[in-house]
Amino acid sequence: MALFVQKFGGTSVGDPEKLMRVAKRVVATAEAGNSVAVVVSAMGKTTDSLLQLVREISDEPNPRELDVLLSTGEQVSIALLSIAIQTLGHRSRAFTGGQVRVLTDSEYGQARIQRIGAERVEEALSQGEIPVVAGFQGVNQLGDVTTLGRGGSDLSAVALAAALNADLCEIYTDVDGVFTADPGIVPRARKLSKISYDEMLELASLGAGVLQTRSVLAAKKFNVDLHVRSSFKPDEGTVITRENEGMENVVVTGVTHDAKQAKLSLLRVPDQPGIASQIFASMADAGVVIDMIVQSTNPSGFTDISVTMPRASVSTAVDAAQGLVDSVGAAGMNFDENVAKVSIVGVGMRSHGGVAARMFTALSGEGINIHMISTSEIAISCVVDLKYAELAVRILHQVFGLHEA
Amino acid sequence: MALFVQKFGGTSVGDPEKLMRVAKRVVATAEAGNSVAVVVSAMGKTTDSLLQLVREISDEPNPRELDVLLSTGEQVSIALLSIAIQTLGHRSRAFTGGQVRVLTDSEYGQARIQRIGAERVEEALSQGEIPVVAGFQGVNQLGDVTTLGRGGSDLSAVALAAALNADLCEIYTDVDGVFTADPGIVPRARKLSKISYDEMLELASLGAGVLQTRSVLAAKKFNVDLHVRSSFKPDEGTVITRENEGMENVVVTGVTHDAKQAKLSLLRVPDQPGIASQIFASMADAGVVIDMIVQSTNPSGFTDISVTMPRASVSTAVDAAQGLVDSVGAAGMNFDENVAKVSIVGVGMRSHGGVAARMFTALSGEGINIHMISTSEIAISCVVDLKYAELAVRILHQVFGLHEA
Repeated sequence: MALFVQKFGGTSVGDPEKLMRVAKRVVATAEAGNSVAVVVSAMGKTTDSLLQLVREISDEPNPRELDVLLSTGEQVSIALLSIAIQTLGHRSRAFTGGQVRVLTDSEYGQARIQRIGAERVEEALSQGEIPVVAGFQGVNQLGDVTTLGRGGSDLSAVALAAALNADLCEIYTDVDGVFTADPGIVPRARKLSKISYDEMLELASLGAGVLQTRSVLAAKKFNVDLHVRSSFKPDEGTVITRENEGMENVVVTGVTHDAKQAKLSLLRVPDQPGIASQIFASMADAGVVIDMIVQSTNPSGFTDISVTMPRASVSTAVDAAQGLVDSVGAAGMNFDENVAKVSIVGVGMRSHGGVAARMFTALSGEGINIHMISTSEIAISCVVDLKYAELAVRILHQVFGLHEA
Repeated sequence: MALFVQKFGGTSVGDPEKLMRVAKRVVATAEAGNSVAVVVSAMGKTTDSLLQLVREISDEPNPRELDVLLSTGEQVSIALLSIAIQTLGHRSRAFTGGQVRVLTDSEYGQARIQRIGAERVEEALSQGEIPVVAGFQGVNQLGDVTTLGRGGSDLSAVALAAALNADLCEIYTDVDGVFTADPGIVPRARKLSKISYDEMLELASLGAGVLQTRSVLAAKKFNVDLHVRSSFKPDEGTVITRENEGMENVVVTGVTHDAKQAKLSLLRVPDQPGIASQIFASMADAGVVIDMIVQSTNPSGFTDISVTMPRASVSTAVDAAQGLVDSVGAAGMNFDENVAKVSIVGVGMRSHGGVAARMFTALSGEGINIHMISTSEIAISCVVDLKYAELAVRILHQVFGLHEA
């Protein structure tokens, strides 16, 4: 008998019919002889409707009150799902984040979990009940409701699985799992049965939208096995787990891309200490989140500094950069809104040489120019013209043999 | 500087525009130099929508989970109203029933308040904030959400006013106050500026739908002055308060009627001990709530027993009565679905004689036959044919001089 935490997102519980389907799935796991605790998000568009309602009253609602408002979404879901499970003849109990004592800091709207006191959930499990816990929410020291921000329900599930010492944390979602590449671009992309935390972290931060980085980080920290799978199909998805030796045999695990990037370069910046930090401080002040950074030095005492950022930030960044050109004494600046980042990820890179060379050769073989390169221990990213992004993904998927099982 | 508790019902906060109007009203009270704590119900049709949602999943939802679901309605209201008050430049904080520690028993759906720990509300008030508290809800010893049932938000307001030792508890509603009679029937009906708890209790239980009996009982118990007034007009309403000497000068304070009654009689019941209790036990088992009871004895050793009940229960009651005719050895039964109860209420009756006689004379003067009579210390009720109910109310209003200020 295993202990499962099963998390269902908003699209999985969008209406009473879908809720019943989720209830059946949960009950099937229980009837197979397992203990199950469920974590659930707000139903479909509930959060959007609540936000629309509050916008009719205030453009800048107080974050504390906003969390009181938004947390009702999951509270509706837990009550309905618990009732749905009961109609199937199982005992169940709904718990809010406050009742489970999901203790957080007081950063309303983006609170961090500090501790989970899962006693009530454990007690329910020990009585053969199926506890249904509200994701996305907690309480601070004062007992005030907080919400965890984007990806919060996944994080709730991971934290609960850690607190319960669960055998597996299943994240039910609207995708089938983690793929070697976006199947919309690479028809031969393959679902991975297993991937390491670090690879998933690279994929998450590089733009594959299956899981938020923070949930994967928490799973890694607490050593929780995550199974990402479809709410709508019975098939197994992808298990995200601790790295093992077999994983290193594969050089590249996946190819990912982020098509929403822009590039900005400051030209002939004096190569003096403190200038780079001045540039980044100025961008941060303007609210621009810098992704990649490449600085090319040359013997003349000047340097070009190029950065990438989300395309939506480009006009803000250009404004900030124009001020910088004068203050740091650069020769000028230019920017390109039509770039994308293409990346290969794999723990096998650590033990296999020549991976970067194979990547660059493959791209240049198709006439794709590389604007910027950035590497980590288990990932290599290239910025290319947006129009070549999908071609680059397909080529790399083929070159690294990712369509082979 | 006075301390007010202001309670706004669902129709008063039906949409963002109405919420803003409520916020302005609250802020006006604060800006007049008072402290204000607000109690608010769920917005308009929210509770109905939630009930409809759950009905798609279960016909008999678990009461515990149902309370988790329904309590979200007020949680949305408190968040939005608090935000609305903040947009008007005042500090405000939203509190759920759990945060205020409205401690109740565990009768989900109809919980009784045991205690209020209003420390957080007091702390907010002491910091010059306007606390906004969710009505209708509390928590039990386990920390599970409970709801208080019909009239629950009024009860929350009264209990909070008692806990805070407030100067006045204002109940904002969609009526202007308590009238000498239903203004739809008696155009000259007058709004009462003041009425005693006991009179209001009689009016509430006799069918005037302004306040639930339990809220008035609680106000009486804790000696909280209630001001029932309109959300939509600035006019003063009616203050429900402890009885004072001046009140006894008025013989009759109001005339009320309940047009949804039915009458059932068991004929020639053997006049033996235990038979009446057998009848009432049988009705209670069938779920029929008996209102008036009249038993006429005669020397023959037989008696007729007549009862009234809500018209909606009549067919159930008839079924139960048919079984009873045999088991108690009655001669038969009859029922009349078209009756109404007309009542006069006034603490002055205690010190004025002949009130009943004046009532009966007035009714018979109009040719209105009285089927049943029931009296309390401060009320007299007559069951009459439904078609005469409105005429009876108008006549009694006139005879007892209620249109005079």
